[in-house]
Amino acid sequence: MSALEEQGKRVAASPWGPDDQIGALNRITPASRAAIMARIDGREVYDLSVDFFLGMPSFQAAGDPPFQMWMTHTPQGTLVDDLNGQGPVVNTCAAYSGDVILMYTHTGTHIDSLNHLGYHGEIYNGVKPEDALGSRHWLRNGSEQMPPIIARGVLIDVPAHLGVECLPDSHAIGVEEIEATLAAQGVELREGDVALIRTGRMRHWPDSERVMGDSPGVSIEAAEWLTEVGIAAVGADNEAVEVTPSRTDQNWLPGHCHFLAGAGVPMMELLNLEEISQARLYEHAFVGAPIRIRGATGSPLRPLAFPVR
Amino acid sequence: MSALEEQGKRVAASPWGPDDQIGALNRITPASRAAIMARIDGREVYDLSVDFFLGMPSFQAAGDPPFQMWMTHTPQGTLVDDLNGQGPVVNTCAAYSGDVILMYTHTGTHIDSLNHLGYHGEIYNGVKPEDALGSRHWLRNGSEQMPPIIARGVLIDVPAHLGVECLPDSHAIGVEEIEATLAAQGVELREGDVALIRTGRMRHWPDSERVMGDSPGVSIEAAEWLTEVGIAAVGADNEAVEVTPSRTDQNWLPGHCHFLAGAGVPMMELLNLEEISQARLYEHAFVGAPIRIRGATGSPLRPLAFPVR
Amino acid sequence: MSALEEQGKRVAASPWGPDDQIGALNRITPASRAAIMARIDGREVYDLSVDFFLGMPSFQAAGDPPFQMWMTHTPQGTLVDDLNGQGPVVNTCAAYSGDVILMYTHTGTHIDSLNHLGYHGEIYNGVKPEDALGSRHWLRNGSEQMPPIIARGVLIDVPAHLGVECLPDSHAIGVEEIEATLAAQGVELREGDVALIRTGRMRHWPDSERVMGDSPGVSIEAAEWLTEVGIAAVGADNEAVEVTPSRTDQNWLPGHCHFLAGAGVPMMELLNLEEISQARLYEHAFVGAPIRIRGATGSPLRPLAFPVR
Amino acid sequence: MSALEEQGKRVAASPWGPDDQIGALNRITPASRAAIMARIDGREVYDLSVDFFLGMPSFQAAGDPPFQMWMTHTPQGTLVDDLNGQGPVVNTCAAYSGDVILMYTHTGTHIDSLNHLGYHGEIYNGVKPEDALGSRHWLRNGSEQMPPIIARGVLIDVPAHLGVECLPDSHAIGVEEIEATLAAQGVELREGDVALIRTGRMRHWPDSERVMGDSPGVSIEAAEWLTEVGIAAVGADNEAVEVTPSRTDQNWLPGHCHFLAGAGVPMMELLNLEEISQARLYEHAFVGAPIRIRGATGSPLRPLAFPVR
Repeated sequence: MSALEEQGKRVAASPWGPDDQIGALNRITPASRAAIMARIDGREVYDLSVDFFLGMPSFQAAGDPPFQMWMTHTPQGTLVDDLNGQGPVVNTCAAYSGDVILMYTHTGTHIDSLNHLGYHGEIYNGVKPEDALGSRHWLRNGSEQMPPIIARGVLIDVPAHLGVECLPDSHAIGVEEIEATLAAQGVELREGDVALIRTGRMRHWPDSERVMGDSPGVSIEAAEWLTEVGIAAVGADNEAVEVTPSRTDQNWLPGHCHFLAGAGVPMMELLNLEEISQARLYEHAFVGAPIRIRGATGSPLRPLAFPVR
Repeated sequence: MSALEEQGKRVAASPWGPDDQIGALNRITPASRAAIMARIDGREVYDLSVDFFLGMPSFQAAGDPPFQMWMTHTPQGTLVDDLNGQGPVVNTCAAYSGDVILMYTHTGTHIDSLNHLGYHGEIYNGVKPEDALGSRHWLRNGSEQMPPIIARGVLIDVPAHLGVECLPDSHAIGVEEIEATLAAQGVELREGDVALIRTGRMRHWPDSERVMGDSPGVSIEAAEWLTEVGIAAVGADNEAVEVTPSRTDQNWLPGHCHFLAGAGVPMMELLNLEEISQARLYEHAFVGAPIRIRGATGSPLRPLAFPVR
Repeated sequence: MSALEEQGKRVAASPWGPDDQIGALNRITPASRAAIMARIDGREVYDLSVDFFLGMPSFQAAGDPPFQMWMTHTPQGTLVDDLNGQGPVVNTCAAYSGDVILMYTHTGTHIDSLNHLGYHGEIYNGVKPEDALGSRHWLRNGSEQMPPIIARGVLIDVPAHLGVECLPDSHAIGVEEIEATLAAQGVELREGDVALIRTGRMRHWPDSERVMGDSPGVSIEAAEWLTEVGIAAVGADNEAVEVTPSRTDQNWLPGHCHFLAGAGVPMMELLNLEEISQARLYEHAFVGAPIRIRGATGSPLRPLAFPVR
Repeated sequence: MSALEEQGKRVAASPWGPDDQIGALNRITPASRAAIMARIDGREVYDLSVDFFLGMPSFQAAGDPPFQMWMTHTPQGTLVDDLNGQGPVVNTCAAYSGDVILMYTHTGTHIDSLNHLGYHGEIYNGVKPEDALGSRHWLRNGSEQMPPIIARGVLIDVPAHLGVECLPDSHAIGVEEIEATLAAQGVELREGDVALIRTGRMRHWPDSERVMGDSPGVSIEAAEWLTEVGIAAVGADNEAVEVTPSRTDQNWLPGHCHFLAGAGVPMMELLNLEEISQARLYEHAFVGAPIRIRGATGSPLRPLAFPVR
C-alpha cells in the first residue's frame, strides 16, 4: 500500500443510511441470532474476559491513566465519619463498603466504538467534530448505541495452526494464514459472524512487558479480507487486533481506521481466548453485551462463548 | 422484627465452605444452565440495562461522586499536543479519540457484590477487615469472583398484577403480594432462579427526583421468603431492591444485609424491566455477566433476557 | 450595552507582545513588590482561603464533578494488601496513609487563568484552538505561567460601606458604589494593585443554597472601570466576581470575558474576605501564589494579606 | 540504631496539648513572623515550586495514580453539547474552557501532613484510627490545619559545600555534613526556622529515572539533629527529604516517621532549590501556604523565598 493510498482514505458512508451509528452490527438479525442460539449447549460457558485490577497492563504511553480504584465507604470508616448519617447504632450493625473506579475506556477486555478512530478528523458515516464532538464525549457512534452482540463466533487460532504457543512479536497475520487456519479447523467464516483472532499473547497476561507493544496481529490486508467477508465484529487476544507497530508511516493504526471508520466494524481487544483455544471451540455462540456509555469510544464487556451442537 | 433481632444478626458461613466467595451463585450448575438455555428462542433479546451518561441519577448523599467522563484524545487536540508522538502527517490521517470514565460502582444498572454490606464489621462467610480489607478494596468476595449469571429468570411484576403503573413511594412489597403475583402470572419461582422484582420505578428514569429515594421495594419478610426459595440472585428496577427508607431504626439497609451477608445472594439494581413487562416475559433465560473488578463491591453489567419455549 | 456590542467584542492583543501569556500580571514589577513589602508588619497575617472538603459548594450545573478525595493507603489496609511491598514487620512499625484528590479547577478559593473564557473561540492575545488547544488542556495562558502575585491589595468592602451584612442576591455593584466605598475607606485604587471586592456572600459559606447562583457582583461597567485603573488582578468573595445571572442575553459571563480576554486580568474567586473586613484591612500586602498546573484554566491558591504600616 | 529501637518507637504526645494538630508549626509566632518579615527586600522573589503536568514524575510504585488532567468544557465542544444550557448565540460569543485535575497528594512540590506516617497504627499526638480514620480521610492532623508557614528559611546547600552538582544516589547526609555546610555558609539554624536541605536532585527534574528512587537525603541521625534544633518545618529538593532506600530493615521511611510522628514536623518535598542555591540565599524569608484540604495527608503548595537585609 502506498502512502498516498493511506492518506487518501476517508470514512465510509454507512450502507444502512445517514442516521446509522452501529455499522456492521446491523448484520445481526433476529434470524441470525435464532440460528446460532438454537444450537447452544448451555452446560458449558467460556468467559472471554480478564479482570480489572490495580497495576493491570494498560496503555499509558499517550498520557492515559492506569486503572484506579478507591473505597468511598469502609465499615470502620463509616463508624468514624458517619457519611451516611445513620449514626453509631446502625453503622455498628450494618457494615458498609463502597468503591469508585476510574479507567481509560480501552483497558482490559473491551470493545472499540466506531468513534474511536476515523480519517481526517471525521468518524464513521461522515460525522464531523463541529456537529458532534462535545466537550466530554462524541455525541454519535458511542458504545451506548451497540446492541448486544449475539452471533456465530469463529475462533481463528493462528498459533495453534502453526504449532506455536504465541506468535512472534510484531508478526503480521496475513490473508493466507487466516485462510489456512480456517481450512485446518474445518470452519468457514461467514457474513454476520464475530471473528476472533488468537495470537497467543494472552498467555503472557498480565505481564505488561510482554503483552503491551510490538504485538502480533492482523495485517491491513487481512483486515480488509475480514471486512469483505462481512463480519459483524472482530476481536482478538491482543491490545490492538492489528499488528503493531504499523507497517506504514502514514498511519499508526491503519487497521483501526479500516475496521472502525472504513467498514463500521467494532473491535474487541484483550479477549481471553486461551480456554476456547484449549477446547478447540472454533465455532460457538458468541454473546457479548458492551456496557452502554453515552458517546464512549470504548467500553468494558465480558463476552461469553457457548459450545454449539 | 424487634430491634434486638436485627442487632443480633451475623454474617452467614457459606454452605459451600470456608473458601467460598460466591454464595448462592453456586446454585448455578451445568445442568441448570443447560436446562434453560435449551429452551431459548434467540429471535428476540431484551436488554435489561440503562446507559451511563453525565447527569444520570446516582447516589451522592454519602459523598460518592456522580458519573463522570472525560476525553483524553480528540482528533484536533492530537494535532496540537501530539500525545501519541506520531506527528502531524499521521495525526491528520488518523482521527484519534479516547476517553476516561469515573464512577461509583453502584451507579446505573449494576450488581452488588457480597462484600458491599455485612454485619458487625464482617462480610459474608466470616471475612474480617483485619484479614481482607486492603487500602484500595476488599481482597475477598469481590465482583471478579462472580461467574456469568445464566439461569432461569422469573419476572415478578407486582405493579402489573396490581394494575398500577408504578408502586407508590416506599411501598413495602410483602410475601403475599409476591405469591399472588406469581400465581396470577402462572409461574413458579424455584431454587437456582434469578428473581426479578418490578416496582415500575424505571418508568420515571432518568428523573432523579422520582427514581432515587423513598423507593418501593421488597420488605425484609419478602427478602427472607425469596432466599428461602433458594434463588441464585435477585434483581429489581429500583435503586435498592428493598423498600426505602428502612422499617427498622437498627439498620438502614436490612434487605441488603440479609441478601448479601445473611444469604450470599448478589443483588442487581436499576434493571430496566419495562420491556419484559410489556412482553409479559415472566419466565425467560437470564444471561448477565458482571464486569470483573478485583475486590469491587459492585460492578456494571448489561443483562439480557431471552424468551424461552 | 447593546447586544451588538457584546457580540462584537474580540480578545485583546497583549500590550506586552505576541508571546505574552500573563497580561495584567506584567504590572507587578520588582519596584512595585519592593514598595509594598517594605511596609509589611508581619505580626499578623490573614488567610484569604477556604478549605476543600467533601460536600463543599461547587459548580456542578454544567456537569463538572464535586470535590472528591479518596485514600490510597491506610495503616490497616497496608498490613493487608502490602501495596508498598514492605511486608508485615515494616508495615506494623510504619503506619502509612495517602490520598488522592479530584477537583474541577474552579472549586473553592481559586484563580481563573486567562484561557478560562475568551471571545469567539479564541483566548487572550489571539490564541486559537487550532494552534493551542490540546486534548487535555490549552497549551497557552495556563496557570503555570502566572508569577506569584505580590502586590498592594485594596479591599473594596461594599456591604460594610452600605451597612449591610451581605449584598442582596444578584445585586450589580456599579462604578459609583465602588468609588463611594473607596472614598469612605480613604484608600485609592492604583495601577498594579490587586482589587478585592467584598459582597458579604462568604458569610453564608458553606451553605451551597446561599453561596452558589444569583450572586451579587460587579457590573460590566464596574469591571471596565477596574481594568481602566490598570489593576494587576481582581478577586472577590463570591463564585464569579461579576453579578449573576448576566444582564445581557448575548453572554452568560460578560465580566469573565472582559477581565480575562479583553483585559488580561486574572480573577480570584471564593476568597474569604470576612476577617480582613472585620479588621478593616483596606490596604494591605497581598501575597498569593497560584499552584502551577500546565495549561489549567484555574488553580487553587491560598492568598495571604499582611497589614502594612 | 538497632532494629529493636525502631520497632520500639511510638508517636509523640504534642507538647502543645492533646488537641494540637500542627506540632512544630506552633513555633511560628507573631514575633517570629514579624522578625523575619521586617527584613524583607521585596524586589526579588524566588519560586520554590515545580509545575504539574501530564507525565511528570510521580510515585506510582504502590498503586498511586500519576497526575491527570482533563477538560470539561472546550469552546467548540460547548457549541455542540451546550452543557451550560446557554445556546448557540451565547456560546459563540463566550469561549468557555474548564478542566479537572486528579492527583496523589504527594505529587510535585508538596507538604506532608502529620497524618501521612505514624507508628504502630497511630498518628501524631496519639490519634487512633478507630477514633479518627474515616472512609475518605483522616479527621485529624490534615493539611487544612496548617497555618501559613512564614518563617526564617535556612538553605543547607550540601552539594554546593562539597563542590558537586548533585549528591550521589542514596547518599546519606550526616550531622557533620549539615554542621560543616552551615558553618561554611556562615548561617546558624535556630528554633522556629524552616530548614531547606538541598541535594541537587532537582537538576535532573523532570527526568523520572533520575529523580525518583535511590535518593540522597538526610540520615536518621541528621533528622534527629534537625528536630532537636526545634525547626518548625523541613523541606528538600528530593522526593522524601530522607535518604532512600532506608538504612534499617524495620522501617521503610524512618525519617518520615521521625519528623511527622515523632517530632510533629511537616515535610516539604520536591522543592526547587536551584535558583536560591545559585543566588546563595542561605538565609531568607520563607512564605509557603499549603492548600487546605480537609484531612489530607499532603497538599500542593508554592512556597516563596524572599531575600532579607
